[in-house]
Amino acid sequence: MSASARPPEVSADSNDAHWMRRAIGLAESVLYLTAPNPRVGCVIVRDGQVLGEGATQAVGGPHAEVMALRDMQARGHSAAGATVYVTLEPCSHHGRTPPCVDALIAARPARVVVAMTDPNPLVGGKGLARLRAAGIPVSAAVCAEAALALNPGFVARMTRRTPWLWLKLAASMDGRSALHNGASQWITGPAARADGHHWRARSCVVLTGSGTVRIDNPQMNVRHVPTPRQPIRAIVDTRLETPEDARILDGGPVWIFTCHDDAAKARRLEARNARVIVLPSVPSRPEAPNGNLRVDLAAMLRWMGEHDVNEVHAEPGSKLSGALLQSGCVDELLLYMAPVLLGDAQPMARLPALQNLDDARRFEFFEATPLAPDLRIRARVTQNWRELLRCVQPPAGPGV
Amino acid sequence: MSASARPPEVSADSNDAHWMRRAIGLAESVLYLTAPNPRVGCVIVRDGQVLGEGATQAVGGPHAEVMALRDMQARGHSAAGATVYVTLEPCSHHGRTPPCVDALIAARPARVVVAMTDPNPLVGGKGLARLRAAGIPVSAAVCAEAALALNPGFVARMTRRTPWLWLKLAASMDGRSALHNGASQWITGPAARADGHHWRARSCVVLTGSGTVRIDNPQMNVRHVPTPRQPIRAIVDTRLETPEDARILDGGPVWIFTCHDDAAKARRLEARNARVIVLPSVPSRPEAPNGNLRVDLAAMLRWMGEHDVNEVHAEPGSKLSGALLQSGCVDELLLYMAPVLLGDAQPMARLPALQNLDDARRFEFFEATPLAPDLRIRARVTQNWRELLRCVQPPAGPGV
Repeated sequence: MSASARPPEVSADSNDAHWMRRAIGLAESVLYLTAPNPRVGCVIVRDGQVLGEGATQAVGGPHAEVMALRDMQARGHSAAGATVYVTLEPCSHHGRTPPCVDALIAARPARVVVAMTDPNPLVGGKGLARLRAAGIPVSAAVCAEAALALNPGFVARMTRRTPWLWLKLAASMDGRSALHNGASQWITGPAARADGHHWRARSCVVLTGSGTVRIDNPQMNVRHVPTPRQPIRAIVDTRLETPEDARILDGGPVWIFTCHDDAAKARRLEARNARVIVLPSVPSRPEAPNGNLRVDLAAMLRWMGEHDVNEVHAEPGSKLSGALLQSGCVDELLLYMAPVLLGDAQPMARLPALQNLDDARRFEFFEATPLAPDLRIRARVTQNWRELLRCVQPPAGPGV
Repeated sequence: MSASARPPEVSADSNDAHWMRRAIGLAESVLYLTAPNPRVGCVIVRDGQVLGEGATQAVGGPHAEVMALRDMQARGHSAAGATVYVTLEPCSHHGRTPPCVDALIAARPARVVVAMTDPNPLVGGKGLARLRAAGIPVSAAVCAEAALALNPGFVARMTRRTPWLWLKLAASMDGRSALHNGASQWITGPAARADGHHWRARSCVVLTGSGTVRIDNPQMNVRHVPTPRQPIRAIVDTRLETPEDARILDGGPVWIFTCHDDAAKARRLEARNARVIVLPSVPSRPEAPNGNLRVDLAAMLRWMGEHDVNEVHAEPGSKLSGALLQSGCVDELLLYMAPVLLGDAQPMARLPALQNLDDARRFEFFEATPLAPDLRIRARVTQNWRELLRCVQPPAGPGV
């Protein structure tokens, strides 16, 4: 009650965060659309009034800044005296579209605020520098973490050359994903299952293992949320055992990563929309180097990075889940936890016994959201996230 | 922004909820103090002004209503025209203190609002009826769930004759509480461990198993939060194996529940502050009725109910955790989840394999709270909670 009686006190900083959150909301509206380009939102504001706004369109279409400038012009406004909020540093190079920074300089706003700098170390900061050189003041790193959460895969691909991978797991409170007799449908409820399709829809690649393909015969496409684009499906299939009549091969393209160079089988799979990629093998259990082999998962992610993959949604069984974790390929866990106890049953990820608690794989929780009756818990590898964040913030120091 | 421009619209109902939440806050301030009496808070309000407030004191001391009336008088007010908010129906019987309902009738407030009725089916509603008979209007069931959360154990003991038991577990995201070599200190961090002492402090009994006593030799008392009262410690000790030099026997009273009637050992333990209670045995694995025996845990809870125990904080190892779950003794899970994966390790609760997912023990999540770096997840048995809630709400129907 006392708060409403006082005059509103809004600092320039909190205004910046307010408008940047609106720009982030615009970028979220194109979460399923822009890959492999980043999702970007832009708002142009003068005296607390939105003059124009927009978000990046599908590949080849206009970027957010151009969409917002067009919207502004359609509403009969100019950018004079306005501030432009954009979730990513405007591009300064000629790609499929002309540089956004040229369009902004031509529009001559009073100021430009960006949430994060371009993660590409070769171009990062050049867009801001060109704006400054044209006499337009620039602020950076407003809502940087929220902006990074829009595009962790794009930033990962630009900086470390591999996609950002989250491992989707559905498990009981005691960490079990299936009974010993294999029963697993459904541990989680309809809300959690529909939510899982949101994460498939935003990814570039939905990844699973050949065991899941053979046993559950899933489609692995996006069905429970409307999407303008289907991700590529991918299978880790060490011995090239994917059946040619698997449902996953119906529809869009499928990548099959294997160590088994069987040209005849590969041809038959390729006649069914698949692309077979032969990769090196590594021991499937690092602790038993003379045992079974499997696809080198790190090599698979490097291959994906070279093929414009930003985000990987991995939804495998417990064996591949364990292998992805053991090989350090997992950046984030997307854990749907059901309010049940299953007792002696199959683990959500098959991992060897540890000798020391300090050797446990450590994450950080950053979200716990009810999806009745289940919980969605997100956890990430702290170091991997901090490294991306470092790459999209201007270097600290004098003169910046 | 539009909301602050409109005149405040506050209905009588939302005012009631506002003041009742304040009364609930007062009751929370005596969470560690009042057992076996319920925690109760009371606020007396006129024209939006608090005239007096208070909470129930330790056993033998004044109840919340009397504390609030005294506070009101000390501030120089009378209850004329005021509304009294109290989290539990005022008592109408002579216990250790005179009936609160008499004090309220003498004070003649304009209205009395209670969050829940007295759960004792023999007295429930009589306090409200006496107020009405004295011409004081009464409302009930305002914030009933929040009020029940103050006193689930008191309500359980009054209605089903057993305490409310929560099972405290600390585990990894994959449901493991210790490595196979036994290492378990510490899976969770200092904030989660301190929080666990809050739950010990509010309980009447802290329960563990003789295996934990022999292996970890814990004190099981309240140390990380200040408390005016220590709960009784209790041990499930089927074969009466608690060492006489166990640290848990230092300090306050300890109950030892056993099936092993060894008078000499019992005498030695009783010389060390313990009370040995011999109970019937049941098969330790219901699926193997000719196997090992253990203490009948349901009989133990009935015994506790007869001995004024409201809330049991169970903090056992995986074996007793499984036994409590299997015997239907667990009302609530208090799960501290650490952001780690332990892989092949000891389960948080030892439970047999199921043949059917429909047979899984089902709970409902009702809280997920970050306690960095961990998460506190609370889940309860829906049916048990609903049954308590039914017992503290006035029966629906005409004339109520």
